[in-house]
Amino acid sequence: MTIPVASATPSPVPETINVAVLGAAGRMGRTVCDAIEAAAGLELVARYDAGDDFSVVRESGAHVAVDFTVPGVTEANVHALLDAGIHAVVGTTGWTDESRQRVREHLAQPAVAAARTGVLIAPNFGLSAVLAMTFAARAARYFESVEVIELHHPDKIDAPSGTARHTAAAIAAARADAGMAPSPDATETGHDARGADVDGVRVHAVRLRGLVAHEEILFGNVGEQLSIRQDSFDRVSFMPGVLLAVREVVTRPGLTVGLENVLDLS
Amino acid sequence: MTIPVASATPSPVPETINVAVLGAAGRMGRTVCDAIEAAAGLELVARYDAGDDFSVVRESGAHVAVDFTVPGVTEANVHALLDAGIHAVVGTTGWTDESRQRVREHLAQPAVAAARTGVLIAPNFGLSAVLAMTFAARAARYFESVEVIELHHPDKIDAPSGTARHTAAAIAAARADAGMAPSPDATETGHDARGADVDGVRVHAVRLRGLVAHEEILFGNVGEQLSIRQDSFDRVSFMPGVLLAVREVVTRPGLTVGLENVLDLS
Amino acid sequence: MTIPVASATPSPVPETINVAVLGAAGRMGRTVCDAIEAAAGLELVARYDAGDDFSVVRESGAHVAVDFTVPGVTEANVHALLDAGIHAVVGTTGWTDESRQRVREHLAQPAVAAARTGVLIAPNFGLSAVLAMTFAARAARYFESVEVIELHHPDKIDAPSGTARHTAAAIAAARADAGMAPSPDATETGHDARGADVDGVRVHAVRLRGLVAHEEILFGNVGEQLSIRQDSFDRVSFMPGVLLAVREVVTRPGLTVGLENVLDLS
Amino acid sequence: MTIPVASATPSPVPETINVAVLGAAGRMGRTVCDAIEAAAGLELVARYDAGDDFSVVRESGAHVAVDFTVPGVTEANVHALLDAGIHAVVGTTGWTDESRQRVREHLAQPAVAAARTGVLIAPNFGLSAVLAMTFAARAARYFESVEVIELHHPDKIDAPSGTARHTAAAIAAARADAGMAPSPDATETGHDARGADVDGVRVHAVRLRGLVAHEEILFGNVGEQLSIRQDSFDRVSFMPGVLLAVREVVTRPGLTVGLENVLDLS
Repeated sequence: MTIPVASATPSPVPETINVAVLGAAGRMGRTVCDAIEAAAGLELVARYDAGDDFSVVRESGAHVAVDFTVPGVTEANVHALLDAGIHAVVGTTGWTDESRQRVREHLAQPAVAAARTGVLIAPNFGLSAVLAMTFAARAARYFESVEVIELHHPDKIDAPSGTARHTAAAIAAARADAGMAPSPDATETGHDARGADVDGVRVHAVRLRGLVAHEEILFGNVGEQLSIRQDSFDRVSFMPGVLLAVREVVTRPGLTVGLENVLDLS
Repeated sequence: MTIPVASATPSPVPETINVAVLGAAGRMGRTVCDAIEAAAGLELVARYDAGDDFSVVRESGAHVAVDFTVPGVTEANVHALLDAGIHAVVGTTGWTDESRQRVREHLAQPAVAAARTGVLIAPNFGLSAVLAMTFAARAARYFESVEVIELHHPDKIDAPSGTARHTAAAIAAARADAGMAPSPDATETGHDARGADVDGVRVHAVRLRGLVAHEEILFGNVGEQLSIRQDSFDRVSFMPGVLLAVREVVTRPGLTVGLENVLDLS
Repeated sequence: MTIPVASATPSPVPETINVAVLGAAGRMGRTVCDAIEAAAGLELVARYDAGDDFSVVRESGAHVAVDFTVPGVTEANVHALLDAGIHAVVGTTGWTDESRQRVREHLAQPAVAAARTGVLIAPNFGLSAVLAMTFAARAARYFESVEVIELHHPDKIDAPSGTARHTAAAIAAARADAGMAPSPDATETGHDARGADVDGVRVHAVRLRGLVAHEEILFGNVGEQLSIRQDSFDRVSFMPGVLLAVREVVTRPGLTVGLENVLDLS
Repeated sequence: MTIPVASATPSPVPETINVAVLGAAGRMGRTVCDAIEAAAGLELVARYDAGDDFSVVRESGAHVAVDFTVPGVTEANVHALLDAGIHAVVGTTGWTDESRQRVREHLAQPAVAAARTGVLIAPNFGLSAVLAMTFAARAARYFESVEVIELHHPDKIDAPSGTARHTAAAIAAARADAGMAPSPDATETGHDARGADVDGVRVHAVRLRGLVAHEEILFGNVGEQLSIRQDSFDRVSFMPGVLLAVREVVTRPGLTVGLENVLDLS
């Protein structure tokens, strides 16, 4: 996969994609390893975790590495992968505008750019979650009212969820682009029942034993409603998104942020 | 229907129930008049509204009067109906413990008691709303978690709705009776997304153009959920409850509060 | 727990209830063993499975036995438990009117009756499922229309589910008792989209990857809807119902069929 | 609005769009007239109905005509509008491949093409319905399982609804394009509960008093679900879509079929 800088030929998509997993001993990492081993056209060639030498990855023949580690090391991992000419799919949280910008700059270096290496950073690999968010943003300009309800298990310490915040922000941006007024709201008493305000969009957080991670976006016009709901019951639900990302990142040089950008939604 | 005090014989249920409507010119009153005119076994005998002389009702031959007037006059109406020996079905809001107690005392007067006159005061005549609330209170002791979501049109000025408050309070009372702990909640940040606290039960208020009046009660245990939802799209939905109340009040002397107490839910 | 016939004193409820599990090696049985071991006031005293000698149970000091075995042996197990003076909670399927009648007769024998032994046979221990079914039957007489949707994983071979059939039959019986007409339906073309007819109630079966076992009952009147939905995500969701049954069966001599009959739903 | 053929200049979008309504006396037509009268930038210049002379429309100065007439006359209306150089927005049903083709040919005539006249034929002007259908088709390739539930009032004579058929067909086409297998289904007994088969997609039709027109599309993968639901409570809900179509058709020469094609959903 390491391509000589002199070559102008982009790296072809390999028939079998060799995959290394970083954070392979974690709960998410183990699930990813299982999924890759079971997937047609993918081969698991390295399991890397804290304490291992990075040569395990570098010398594995991996075309793509999947990083589900921790915020403190994920950026360093990505730079090491780029140096090794390995595409990266990143599910670890904690990325900032600055850390993403450093990855962009690294990707722009002549040798890396010539190798057409790709990095995909996604805060969420759940197809249902990503599609719900994407569709909600697209529907936003066509409805007078919108609110978001997220529902999670009661052990969650933050509210509302990051996904719900992200969804509300995307909806708010789409409404602003379309020059829309805020959703109507005549509430005079009882504002504490009206949820959090995220960029002008009301977000309600429900905590219920037995739930995992769920989100519902409600749109309203006179005489009609549109509701988009997604349910994530198990982390195994992220695997179709991870596998899709592995297959897509090899054809997408540069930095891609968000799984929605590798989906065909036109 | 006026029964001589001397008689110990309770008033029999009439074959056709004559009905007077108080507040007949209001939106709700007009709908009630239409429903009574269309109902088998009921006959509309008086339409009474502000400015009319009460003799219109007293001399109408009404067995039952339905009061959808305003908080300022409804209690006086009920006392006048009791004096006239007419059963009362009351949908007007604004009743307090004290005003209800005064009705109980009036009903306990020998002449009124002998006439077996009944008064039914109901904050809500929607069967779906009343059943949702009743079932929720009964289910409450069997689930670790519970939250309430109410959804209304965006012109509503108070939050959460009276129905949702009432539902949450009934759930809280049932949980307290069963010696249950509060619903688990590990939230550390973002309490504003967690809704209003009604007796320890979280209540979320959604406002959306196109909605009318809706309530959802969510229960959770490990591995399971129970959801009870009711939707009121139109005030005509209250009519089956009003008609049921008219038919039941003639057989229930004394004060009954809440439509659920005339439903057969065992 | 074996009480001399001469004694008129009923067996007192033990402070700690000793429990034997029959079918302890099965998936459901193992889950039950774990739940009992974790429950306050219950002690697991025997694990019995195919091939074991029944003396394991008889001599265990068990007050209650929980049977999650197979249709071919569950009836014989119950009779053996009754002979041993042990209350039985039965979750195994396959019971018929005849096999239940034989249990009733055994319970009526003087020695067993004097011991006040109880048997609880329940087709479903899911509280959400049992409550949904019970509430649906009680609501049935108050709505013009009703339909049932059940949703399961796509590996299920029968449709509609037994729970949905049972729910529809209970709704149909309640409507018949109340003298109601069938739900209105003007369908002239496309009857194959209208679901199965169970005693006149339409039942729709959805099969979807990712689902487990879910049921929704929809009621409609002019201008209003009532929806009751239950979701079972995991067999662990049956444990609260099993534990409740274990605690209740010791106070309920004779045969009880259906968990709803030990719930306090008034 | 009639542009000389010689001119190469396309007709500019007028500041105020003059609108004629065909079928103005029908229920839908009256609602459209009210909506246009209330809309900024639109002016109602003609109400035309059966029995009126078409000169009412032709000489009205209308830039756009909205046709909510009946299947028997709608095609003739469109051709007459094209001859008059008036853009057409058509909500009347009954269009076939052949009748659409005849409109395309008329639009291709040099004079009409030069005038850049546009025709928009839409089977559904409900934004929630159109968006639900469009999003469902786009999501289709990302989920192993999919089923459609449509819910309507019980006076509907056909099942499943045209919208549900259309949705299922679009989903089936998207799945075929992506080379997907049918949704898994192990059903052996009870096929009548499994709904209608529309191009391999199961469609269930619920009929319930109190409902109007509703559709839910359910997608499932291992561990996750995506649900898209739309509710139409009132024909007034079609007005935002009609107004949008009126504003868009003047900028879109030729034939456009389906409101989704004038929405910005990228």
